[in-house]
Amino acid sequence: MTEYTHIFKGTAFTSKSATEVQILKDYLFFINADGMIDKTIAPEHTDYQQLLTTYQHQNNFHQLSEGQYFLPGFVDLHVHAPQWAQSGTALDIPLYDWLNTYTFPIESKFSDLAFAQEVYEDLVGTLLANGTTTSLYFATVHKEASVLLANICAEKGQRGLVGKVVMDDPEQNPDFYRDANTQTALADTEEFILAVKELAKTTKQGVYPVVTPRFIPSCTDNALKGLGELAAKYDTHIQSHCSESDWEHGYVKERFNKNDAVALHDFGLLGKKSVMAHCNFLSDDDARLFAETGTAIGHCPISNAYFANSVIPIARFHAMGVDIGLGSDVSGGFSPSLFDNARQAVMSSRMLEDGVDTAIAADQRGVPNSRITINEAFYLATAGGGESLSLPIGRLQEHYTWDVQIIDTKIPSAKLPIFDQNEDLRDIFQKMMYLVRPENIREVWVQGNKVHTRV
Amino acid sequence: MTEYTHIFKGTAFTSKSATEVQILKDYLFFINADGMIDKTIAPEHTDYQQLLTTYQHQNNFHQLSEGQYFLPGFVDLHVHAPQWAQSGTALDIPLYDWLNTYTFPIESKFSDLAFAQEVYEDLVGTLLANGTTTSLYFATVHKEASVLLANICAEKGQRGLVGKVVMDDPEQNPDFYRDANTQTALADTEEFILAVKELAKTTKQGVYPVVTPRFIPSCTDNALKGLGELAAKYDTHIQSHCSESDWEHGYVKERFNKNDAVALHDFGLLGKKSVMAHCNFLSDDDARLFAETGTAIGHCPISNAYFANSVIPIARFHAMGVDIGLGSDVSGGFSPSLFDNARQAVMSSRMLEDGVDTAIAADQRGVPNSRITINEAFYLATAGGGESLSLPIGRLQEHYTWDVQIIDTKIPSAKLPIFDQNEDLRDIFQKMMYLVRPENIREVWVQGNKVHTRV
Ligand SMILES: [Zn+2]
Ligand SMILES: [Zn+2]
Repeated sequence: MTEYTHIFKGTAFTSKSATEVQILKDYLFFINADGMIDKTIAPEHTDYQQLLTTYQHQNNFHQLSEGQYFLPGFVDLHVHAPQWAQSGTALDIPLYDWLNTYTFPIESKFSDLAFAQEVYEDLVGTLLANGTTTSLYFATVHKEASVLLANICAEKGQRGLVGKVVMDDPEQNPDFYRDANTQTALADTEEFILAVKELAKTTKQGVYPVVTPRFIPSCTDNALKGLGELAAKYDTHIQSHCSESDWEHGYVKERFNKNDAVALHDFGLLGKKSVMAHCNFLSDDDARLFAETGTAIGHCPISNAYFANSVIPIARFHAMGVDIGLGSDVSGGFSPSLFDNARQAVMSSRMLEDGVDTAIAADQRGVPNSRITINEAFYLATAGGGESLSLPIGRLQEHYTWDVQIIDTKIPSAKLPIFDQNEDLRDIFQKMMYLVRPENIREVWVQGNKVHTRV
Repeated sequence: MTEYTHIFKGTAFTSKSATEVQILKDYLFFINADGMIDKTIAPEHTDYQQLLTTYQHQNNFHQLSEGQYFLPGFVDLHVHAPQWAQSGTALDIPLYDWLNTYTFPIESKFSDLAFAQEVYEDLVGTLLANGTTTSLYFATVHKEASVLLANICAEKGQRGLVGKVVMDDPEQNPDFYRDANTQTALADTEEFILAVKELAKTTKQGVYPVVTPRFIPSCTDNALKGLGELAAKYDTHIQSHCSESDWEHGYVKERFNKNDAVALHDFGLLGKKSVMAHCNFLSDDDARLFAETGTAIGHCPISNAYFANSVIPIARFHAMGVDIGLGSDVSGGFSPSLFDNARQAVMSSRMLEDGVDTAIAADQRGVPNSRITINEAFYLATAGGGESLSLPIGRLQEHYTWDVQIIDTKIPSAKLPIFDQNEDLRDIFQKMMYLVRPENIREVWVQGNKVHTRV
């Protein structure tokens, strides 16, 4: 008899495809010592009753109560960890002022490790409480504080992919907040990679160093080239921003006479382990380049409403074969919740499809076939995020990690509006996606370990 | 010495104008037996210290703890109470199917008073827990169940404005769910008005009957005319939907050869106590008619993303002098929270200003000057709602009702990201508007009575 660390029984929802959700009603999930789903057993399976009898009185057998459901843990593809300290503020001002009067000053404070610890612990705990089991983080330019963030993820049990930010161009960055010079930027990045790889050896759920040029405008050519080489040398993930806004898209075109995507590719920064945030202004050629190289888009729907001057055509890029996941973009986006971002992804796509300006005739107002459904938004927050990172996460199926949120639809303080005891599970799924609050998330597990409980 | 029922000390936020928020730091609020704010005293006032000494040890003196703040209770201008039972579902299907395969069948079930009681109690409790102290409700066509909703508001302490819905046209409504005929529709409405006026005599916070044609397409001319007369006879509030979508706007134009707003006016349905939901497709002439008659817009930003084919130009209509408040439009909008709707009101306005389609040049993409700030969204959710209903609510100042939410920014399970103990109160206000969850709302008071507590 195989030894399992945990056995779970309950109803789960997982993506079958980008548009279809599979309902695993009353399944058994067998978790092994590595925190992976070793096998899943449906009630129709011939062994189900016998397995149930064997395991159900063991201490490591967990049965969901009525009204509780498993969802895969969420994968957040874009979080600026230091910006958590200013989340929700100053969203009424232009991007340039937002960066220079709010964001860069606050990021510069992360040279103070005590402050970094306070903010980062609060953020990682908050993300776990919101059901986010994997996060791809921008830290700051500071090597030590960036390693500290990786340590906090490791300790708290979240799967963290962390980047020390590179912004070395003295002409484009403030004196009080940038890499001292290109050489230091690259040396610090390499030391950072080695430190996190060392930490990874003792971190069950994984912790990963990420090569992180802030975006092309903040980096010199030599830094971009050096970072591409470091990513290749150590086979790391890569993240940056790409074609976010009219200004940024225009800046890169002016500097290199090519689009952002092509420039990033020429520096060796696209690939299967690359995730680019925003990408609203990708051309179809750019999107094909993303699909060919395996580069993913981190779609940040809330943040985009403030800073991206547009709605990204997710449905079109998805149809072209680009990997896409969701990002909160804290704090360009105010919410640490991918539930909130999934909802906004649907709403923004509807606004793109229908258009916004009532002065324009209905058939001219929008972009047909742009809408995504809540099923697709769920996919982006889970399986799509996993594919974007090329990790076996975001699905509740065999050989994937046991990363789950246990949702309780019946807690008195935040019960969902379910009045029919036989309500269709597809409707319950939709109610969860649209109405769950952090207090409905009773437990969060990462790689087979419980990392968050609501009491 | 005047007898006050309650005295509160703490920092409050209230709208000074549509764009400015006033911060009442460490104020004293004196509440009289009618539940009104009798006077407010600033720390600079010469009597402040003496009043504090006099009252601070009384049982009815309430001092906020550190990290707690007062916000005015929210005013929700558009709630379909029966649709709470389906909130969050079926938002991926077209309006026609949504109405006929989901909404009308569920509304028809409210002939069952036991079911009505279960759903309505849950909804009113949920809205209070979300900080909504006043709601303008569509019930269903059923007179008894509509009176029941008013009763539940009265009992739970919420200020409810409730309408029995009229939809009498046999050609436009399903046989299983409509008024039997025009005469019954009007007679039931009149009896409903009288019953709620009777209930109002014993309801401290107020409960109000509302004349409620569902929208022009569902009503005969005679019903619309009769409803206008009933509203005049009893001086009631009036609510309906106006110029919501391309289809509905076009239908009215076809039937009457005039815009929705003009048709409603000609039936006697516009006025100081009228609130029309959505109104995306008002012409400037329509908007002027709203401003002249004192008719208000119930802006439903979340719902509009699904069903209104556009973003309403709030900034333009506001500048024309139209009263505007916020509506959740449960369940065309999935969220019962006006925090969520305030956030969406800002985001939608940004999308209108910037445009959505990246294929269009930046200077052609959107509608300039359409954005609203979070201060304006707060105004819409509070003072704007009060003005829309012509009631002294939505502001924390003398001669307004004591309708407040007490927000706790420091509860361990949902603390806001405030790391600087001297953070500017304007930034704390923004963090609250963008990040508060129901669990941060520790107490809710209506008309001087505590109606909700989180334990
Ligand atoms: Zn970013
Ligand atoms: Zn409505």
